[in-house]
Amino acid sequence: MRMVDIIQAKRNGKTLTKEEINFFVEGYTNGTIPDYQASALLMAVYFKGMSAEETATLTEAMVASGETIDLSGIEGPKVDKHSTGGVGDKVTFIVGPLVASAGVPVAKMSGRGLGHTGGTLDKLEAIDGLEIEMSIDKFIEQVNKTKLAVAGQTGNLAPADKKLYALRDVTATVDSIPLIAGSIMSKKLASGANSIVLDVKTGSGAFMKSLEDSEALATEMVNIGKHLGRNTIAVISDMNQPLGYEIGNANEIKEAVEILQGKDVTDLRVISLTIAAHMIVLAGKYDTFDEAYKALEGNIENGSAFEMLRQMVIAQGGDVNQVDDLTKLPQASNTIEVKAPSAGFVTAIDAESVGIAAMYLGAGRATKEDDIDHSVGITLLKKVGDEVAEGETFAYLLSNTETAEDAEKKLLSAYTFGTEKPEERPLIHKIIK
Amino acid sequence: MRMVDIIQAKRNGKTLTKEEINFFVEGYTNGTIPDYQASALLMAVYFKGMSAEETATLTEAMVASGETIDLSGIEGPKVDKHSTGGVGDKVTFIVGPLVASAGVPVAKMSGRGLGHTGGTLDKLEAIDGLEIEMSIDKFIEQVNKTKLAVAGQTGNLAPADKKLYALRDVTATVDSIPLIAGSIMSKKLASGANSIVLDVKTGSGAFMKSLEDSEALATEMVNIGKHLGRNTIAVISDMNQPLGYEIGNANEIKEAVEILQGKDVTDLRVISLTIAAHMIVLAGKYDTFDEAYKALEGNIENGSAFEMLRQMVIAQGGDVNQVDDLTKLPQASNTIEVKAPSAGFVTAIDAESVGIAAMYLGAGRATKEDDIDHSVGITLLKKVGDEVAEGETFAYLLSNTETAEDAEKKLLSAYTFGTEKPEERPLIHKIIK
Repeated sequence: MRMVDIIQAKRNGKTLTKEEINFFVEGYTNGTIPDYQASALLMAVYFKGMSAEETATLTEAMVASGETIDLSGIEGPKVDKHSTGGVGDKVTFIVGPLVASAGVPVAKMSGRGLGHTGGTLDKLEAIDGLEIEMSIDKFIEQVNKTKLAVAGQTGNLAPADKKLYALRDVTATVDSIPLIAGSIMSKKLASGANSIVLDVKTGSGAFMKSLEDSEALATEMVNIGKHLGRNTIAVISDMNQPLGYEIGNANEIKEAVEILQGKDVTDLRVISLTIAAHMIVLAGKYDTFDEAYKALEGNIENGSAFEMLRQMVIAQGGDVNQVDDLTKLPQASNTIEVKAPSAGFVTAIDAESVGIAAMYLGAGRATKEDDIDHSVGITLLKKVGDEVAEGETFAYLLSNTETAEDAEKKLLSAYTFGTEKPEERPLIHKIIK
Repeated sequence: MRMVDIIQAKRNGKTLTKEEINFFVEGYTNGTIPDYQASALLMAVYFKGMSAEETATLTEAMVASGETIDLSGIEGPKVDKHSTGGVGDKVTFIVGPLVASAGVPVAKMSGRGLGHTGGTLDKLEAIDGLEIEMSIDKFIEQVNKTKLAVAGQTGNLAPADKKLYALRDVTATVDSIPLIAGSIMSKKLASGANSIVLDVKTGSGAFMKSLEDSEALATEMVNIGKHLGRNTIAVISDMNQPLGYEIGNANEIKEAVEILQGKDVTDLRVISLTIAAHMIVLAGKYDTFDEAYKALEGNIENGSAFEMLRQMVIAQGGDVNQVDDLTKLPQASNTIEVKAPSAGFVTAIDAESVGIAAMYLGAGRATKEDDIDHSVGITLLKKVGDEVAEGETFAYLLSNTETAEDAEKKLLSAYTFGTEKPEERPLIHKIIK
């Protein structure tokens, strides 16, 4: 078998065989196939696509390229969730305790972020002492004891994906739906869950801007999961503006806790409950989504969901006082008011620009080596559809510097004000099973 | 400027700017742009093509990547020819003397072949003592004195093309018309001619099988030449069977000499006269193609064309007796007859298989290190449209071994016999100016 023939076959629109895909992934991982042949194949895939079967085979081969995590030591069904990412996405901190409160174990492995704000792990570290590095044995033990653990990924999972992703990044082959789907799913599948709920964001603040692309990606990922024997569903949720009102690290933890304590931040609460409800249905705890949703609402009201978060923080060595009294979380020294330049309705908020503004304040990393300041971020006071008066404060910059002109300018540019109230977008666009 | 943005622009179907193309070619030549980005761009070009302007810019940048040959020391217009290659293609040995016989200097730089038979230089070396390596000064001096020289390419011409071609070969990006056209033309343009006649072969034995593709390639090359200030025309000639009756090295020289001596091997004579006539029209020696063609026919008849070849052989130190008495050229020890398995008409001859059969006999190189046996080859007795009886000899294998079963089998497989005389194909399909 020669790699050049595999490239040519895909270039000519042929379907690659399992043997060909395995030959490529194995050879690329062990270095016998060079980068320049891999990038030519990736570009051919960009143009010619891959069938559902090919994509599943690619994913399986990427999983097989490295270690897989054995979660069989955890009692009961293992349900995982994955978000394609967005600005203000603190859903994991709400969904984890909710699912655990329904008696379904949550063994969540997460990453750090190279983006506008920190990743899940960075945000959690806003809580003093909270330990996210632990052995797989301790991780499993904690899940069995407290039903919930969030830890850093251990082991060499899907190294083929890691190597291919780095190559795609510099060869303009990132935005190919089968390649994106395979990349995400290979990491999920290597992490050992039986069932997966995918939170696929759509809109201006998401990786996939159009509903059509988001649906295509969701469908591809659900297909891969099913092909490889995992119950998989995707929730397509709106990301046409940041999720919730808080963007940063400590302030995102704060907002998540408030939701668990019963605060009604509509978009964040609905999306979190929807994802959690699908997860516990997949786990077999409830027959219908509606029953599951209602039960979870009850667990917010009776405090059991919040208690799950508390127990996790304690188990991982974090200071639970900061969760009980949110003013004890890291606080920025200054609150800078950002005022509306004119009266009217907020008609759009470009989530990405809000994220960049937060990064300017120090909430994210521009390079791997950067430190994150957990205390800084942005608090939005007005979201799409809200009315503002001229000069009214529509957001706070939580800053550790006296002024923050760059961030302020960027945040102002993110907002569009108009004279008419915009139409409401649905929070959940579609469920793909 | 970032290479990844250039790849993405082409991937999205955008036209690259002169700056972007130069950035790529310079960076790739000096090694700052890695192979994996170049191959991704090449695949994007495969799918999205290049405009005439982009292709010309690419070609110009590849020329600029290395040395160029200065032929200004040669008096008069410098006209070059290039063939896209075919089996039995000895046109250069006929065209060179023809053009020189009309008083137009021919400064031909050629290469060696990695193929079924040797390249132009290998074939010339069938003549004892003939020297093809010479300094550029000696080359120019010879052209000024005898009007004709054929020598090995000197200097580091279009190194960007050399590096890109090697990459294309292993990434399934060879057969892209703008890339092929740019590659051929970069080498021609670096060789210093003012005017170029391209012999673009079409048919089963050519790189371009269909007339449509051949026309597209010819048009692209003519455009590049014009864009870069060279008079360029392309002759699309037939290669649906080998050209002439001889395939090998010494025997191809023999057939070329015979044409110059007036023998009427129709296809070879017509194609050679056509190309030579276009060359001397481009050089300004004649106003019309018909006048030029007639004059050249006259130069065959009066012996002046053949004399040009003799003078070149002498000037380059070759044994002119071998040209005057063709039986003195290297001869294989055995002539193996290949007989028709059934009676009928020859309906097709797969040129590539004939070439491979010749290579089996030792006439070509499978790897760079192989030696060429100048004496071996194939003589066809029957060509498409000819009638044969069952058991009649239709070809000779000129071999230095007693038997040559592989070559015989391959040659038999190249021929198709049928009951009806096939329609004649034109020798010259089209002229693209």
